[in-house]
Amino acid sequence: MVIILSVEGFGKPKVIHYTNVERVEVRNAERTWIRVLISKKDGAPTYAMRIFEIEPDGHIPLHDHPWEHEIFVLEGKLRIRIGDEVYEVSDGTAIYIPPNIPHEYWNVGDGILRFICTIPHKPTAPSQ
Amino acid sequence: MVIILSVEGFGKPKVIHYTNVERVEVRNAERTWIRVLISKKDGAPTYAMRIFEIEPDGHIPLHDHPWEHEIFVLEGKLRIRIGDEVYEVSDGTAIYIPPNIPHEYWNVGDGILRFICTIPHKPTAPSQ
Repeated sequence: MVIILSVEGFGKPKVIHYTNVERVEVRNAERTWIRVLISKKDGAPTYAMRIFEIEPDGHIPLHDHPWEHEIFVLEGKLRIRIGDEVYEVSDGTAIYIPPNIPHEYWNVGDGILRFICTIPHKPTAPSQ
Repeated sequence: MVIILSVEGFGKPKVIHYTNVERVEVRNAERTWIRVLISKKDGAPTYAMRIFEIEPDGHIPLHDHPWEHEIFVLEGKLRIRIGDEVYEVSDGTAIYIPPNIPHEYWNVGDGILRFICTIPHKPTAPSQ
């Protein structure tokens, strides 16, 4: 049996614990950190997987962009605005934010808020 | 301020706890279940987010396809073959499987194994 280990342009398999990925402070946000788990740099062709960590009282301000997010909450208490709705959710919640919908995040718990946020490499909708 | 709630073709925001998503048994696997959290049906333009649950001694046989996976382990003990390497990992581990690389999963723990598995809607590499 021949097993292909790497296909040109798509990188190699990657297996990594999130705590072994560098944590970088997010600009234009408060008490918010990002770890880029899987990205273009790994050869991933379509989208990136990141972890956001927001400390208590931290906040990512309202913003929008012509691509979607698919999110999964791992730990903590998230208040999230999507369009004109506000939700409060905790671990085990999946969230889809369509392209061009404004969104905003707050940590409303006493501990760390941690969630996966995936994002396509390219815009998927016309800009508005 | 005008806030756009829905953009044609991209669906509406979705916020759902994974336990409220139907669990469906996976064919051609042992003791394995899937919950489709976010998909084309929601208007997601690029990729889908699912949760797999594999019971103790469950297994997904070796297979490959011309698109990638981006995975995040939530709970349990996963043994995973990717190409000719085998890894044993637990919660907090991110995994990138490039297109066309054969992969196989086992639950090697005493409890449920639960992981997020994302997948693009379309092939991203030539078939091999």
